[in-house]
Amino acid sequence: MLYPTPIAKLIDSYSKLPGIGIKTATRLAFYTIGMSDEDVNTFAKNLLSAKRELTYCSKCGNLTDEDPCAICEDETRDRSTILVVEDSRDVSAMENIQEYRGLYHVLQGLISPMNGIGPDDINLKSLISRLMDSEVTEVIVATNATADGEATAMYISRVLKPAGIKVTRLARGLAVGADIEYADELTLLRAIQNRTEL
Amino acid sequence: MLYPTPIAKLIDSYSKLPGIGIKTATRLAFYTIGMSDEDVNTFAKNLLSAKRELTYCSKCGNLTDEDPCAICEDETRDRSTILVVEDSRDVSAMENIQEYRGLYHVLQGLISPMNGIGPDDINLKSLISRLMDSEVTEVIVATNATADGEATAMYISRVLKPAGIKVTRLARGLAVGADIEYADELTLLRAIQNRTEL
Repeated sequence: MLYPTPIAKLIDSYSKLPGIGIKTATRLAFYTIGMSDEDVNTFAKNLLSAKRELTYCSKCGNLTDEDPCAICEDETRDRSTILVVEDSRDVSAMENIQEYRGLYHVLQGLISPMNGIGPDDINLKSLISRLMDSEVTEVIVATNATADGEATAMYISRVLKPAGIKVTRLARGLAVGADIEYADELTLLRAIQNRTEL
Repeated sequence: MLYPTPIAKLIDSYSKLPGIGIKTATRLAFYTIGMSDEDVNTFAKNLLSAKRELTYCSKCGNLTDEDPCAICEDETRDRSTILVVEDSRDVSAMENIQEYRGLYHVLQGLISPMNGIGPDDINLKSLISRLMDSEVTEVIVATNATADGEATAMYISRVLKPAGIKVTRLARGLAVGADIEYADELTLLRAIQNRTEL
């Protein structure tokens, strides 16, 4: 397609985003031209400030605009428990349910032998040094149930258990509201293995 | 979800785009943070310059970065024909097939009685004044076959025909490669009505 240069460049920028092909990028670019000056300026400013102002918490590795992050600084939180997650979105999901009151550790990745990502390539060393001189008694591993997630969970468990720290993981089973007949086999297997008393 | 302010603002900006919900916006925002500084700067710059540098051609109404636009200025184009389209994307689609060599007129909208959009609310007056003192002999109406597109086509035809200008429209029928059994009824109706000799 032949577009004036400014719009061709904007289409190019949009199409670099994940899951956005050339047709959607074109639609978004034309929509942008129709947006108010103020909205476009805000969008551009938000892009730049998200990139510039965000950093990783030096304690837990969570994405934050102040270091240490608000959770690490919060005196009311239970400092005996650390929940280990893959990325900052998992922290938000967990915070959203307002049940967990301990601390977090964000790996910003997973061990992935297939992709050559080892324990030193993710934010794991700092977890171990955090545990050295602290009151932590339990580490909850909350990685996803993918091959890489399981490998990471196994590695953390193997490193921490000898140090006398209790390592737990999130319960696996049927999602609330899920139909037994449509559940995948692995989920059903976990659900029967981890059954609880009524 | 609880995110640091800069990322919450970026999610908000992304979610204002059409077809992008809060989950996709979150994914895009986190992806943006992982992008290189250069890519994010370019993206922000492209957003601003698309909004600032683009204007509508004072002759044909097409989106352009120089006025009059490259097509209106092109001396080699056939000035006896004007193809009328809804927006600039239609111009690009038509230019892409490299068959049409006349001029364009971009309405930047359609007459839509249901939404209170009349002939004066779109770029239609300038089409009529363009025809006043020019060598144009044919106007091809290439609006989509929606209710608004048809209403606009009928209006243009009614205004121009008394002035002795030939008004044509794009052929409607089965798309090349379409199956007869899956064609909608209206398309099939047009295909039989507009059949051509073999």
